[in-house]
Amino acid sequence: MPSVSPSLAAAMTHAATAVTEALERLLPHSDFAERKLFDAMRFGALGGGKRLRPFLVLNSAQLFGVREDCALRAAASVECVHCYSLVHDDLPAMDNADLRRGKPTAHKQFDEATAILAGDALLTIAFEILADPRTHEDPKVRCNLVAALAKASGANGMVGGQMLDLIAETSELDIGAITRLQRMKTGELIAFSAEAGGILGKASPQHLSALRAYAHDLGLAFQIIDDLLDTEGTEEETGKSVGRDAKAGKATFVTILGLERARHQAELLSEQAIRHLNVFDGRAKNLEDVARFVVDRKG
Amino acid sequence: MPSVSPSLAAAMTHAATAVTEALERLLPHSDFAERKLFDAMRFGALGGGKRLRPFLVLNSAQLFGVREDCALRAAASVECVHCYSLVHDDLPAMDNADLRRGKPTAHKQFDEATAILAGDALLTIAFEILADPRTHEDPKVRCNLVAALAKASGANGMVGGQMLDLIAETSELDIGAITRLQRMKTGELIAFSAEAGGILGKASPQHLSALRAYAHDLGLAFQIIDDLLDTEGTEEETGKSVGRDAKAGKATFVTILGLERARHQAELLSEQAIRHLNVFDGRAKNLEDVARFVVDRKG
Repeated sequence: MPSVSPSLAAAMTHAATAVTEALERLLPHSDFAERKLFDAMRFGALGGGKRLRPFLVLNSAQLFGVREDCALRAAASVECVHCYSLVHDDLPAMDNADLRRGKPTAHKQFDEATAILAGDALLTIAFEILADPRTHEDPKVRCNLVAALAKASGANGMVGGQMLDLIAETSELDIGAITRLQRMKTGELIAFSAEAGGILGKASPQHLSALRAYAHDLGLAFQIIDDLLDTEGTEEETGKSVGRDAKAGKATFVTILGLERARHQAELLSEQAIRHLNVFDGRAKNLEDVARFVVDRKG
Repeated sequence: MPSVSPSLAAAMTHAATAVTEALERLLPHSDFAERKLFDAMRFGALGGGKRLRPFLVLNSAQLFGVREDCALRAAASVECVHCYSLVHDDLPAMDNADLRRGKPTAHKQFDEATAILAGDALLTIAFEILADPRTHEDPKVRCNLVAALAKASGANGMVGGQMLDLIAETSELDIGAITRLQRMKTGELIAFSAEAGGILGKASPQHLSALRAYAHDLGLAFQIIDDLLDTEGTEEETGKSVGRDAKAGKATFVTILGLERARHQAELLSEQAIRHLNVFDGRAKNLEDVARFVVDRKG
């Protein structure tokens, strides 16, 4: 991890460890015949990853003094949605990927039907976790979380973005369409992650919109770097299949802007993301640092 | 519809029409490139069907004087979950069905990727609908609905039941395992449907558990008759492929109990379901009637 400050590295490690422990506790076990489903859910959700979204939930929640056990439930819920989307996106009918985080994808490890069902169940449990009184004592806050997560991950958010991504394989999209695609496919859930801490902390509308704006820019910067890594990175560095977009002839930020301008654009977005945090008067140090880290990462 | 009383027929028609109109309003449209996703969601949810679950929501809600516009939102939400499960269950990796309600299945009409995503989006919007203040003014009621729907449709409910159903194709299940399978696969969501009216109406625990018990027996009776129709019915009558279970060598209530005992069992369950409604002192006439109808239906 180049250019990652010691405090950011510690905060990222803490978020990743804590959310993995929370998922371990929250995901159900079974000794019955359908056990394979439960194993596949855990496989999909506990296989590592950067846990960027949980990091955003925890660190935005900290700004408002939210109890960490509550923030962790929201973080686990977002991660269930993120992981379900990876399990479904990797399916043969979608991206047909064999490798994810250096391991077989869920349908390779289990089978296609089990992967579909495990994704469905991960999505479902995300809402069960949020609606539980242990996530927040105020049911209105819980409803706000459920509604915002559903909007971010549904047809007008993540799922719509994945649909656009599939369409991008066969039709030419311009930079505007690609930006919209990524805003929906990854941006909305990342924005919800940063917003979730604010919802839990009953933040002011001004603070909530600053967090959303920050996360939208961060998400786009993150995606541009993802595209760069798909072009420049190795499977060893990134832990997943690379060069897939180029092979598929798919338009990305890199194919449209070129390597240099794409990197420059990511850096601009990262700086812009950090400026949105000015309303927090320097108290959002970890969120600022992660915006710098995202454009410097190698995997 | 043999042996259906005029008042039940009217109530069923009303529920089916009203929930279809509600879904028309609640399901989003799009003019963007991802429009196919929105079309597939509507295709999956607006293609007809008996709308048994919405009927149960509306008629249980009536017992507690719940406003119909609120009950209809809950009914639409349950139907989104039911329809998503059909879209995913029909996929090639699952039941590989070409025909549903006399029409092509979603992956036949669109394509596999679109069907997977449309199912995901239907599941997601179900929770968005429930969390909205228009479903109920009290956020605690909305959270209770979200939590109960998630439990009924997740790994310990519907999705777990579908996993068991896939396992049943390759391993021999006894009558206990089949009962548990059906209780999870269809019973939990049917139970939630009857319970939802009670949750909306802040019913007493006694009334809630009577509704759940009623719906569990009803759901099992319904499933046994489904198995009978798969054996005895025609594609014309049922609007879907028949004889699939027998071809797959899959254990069902009919293969285990035989035709006659299976029908007798369904009738016993129907009577038992009606007895659970005694706590409502004859005010649950439609719910009683539908329990009789379910065992007499031909499709």
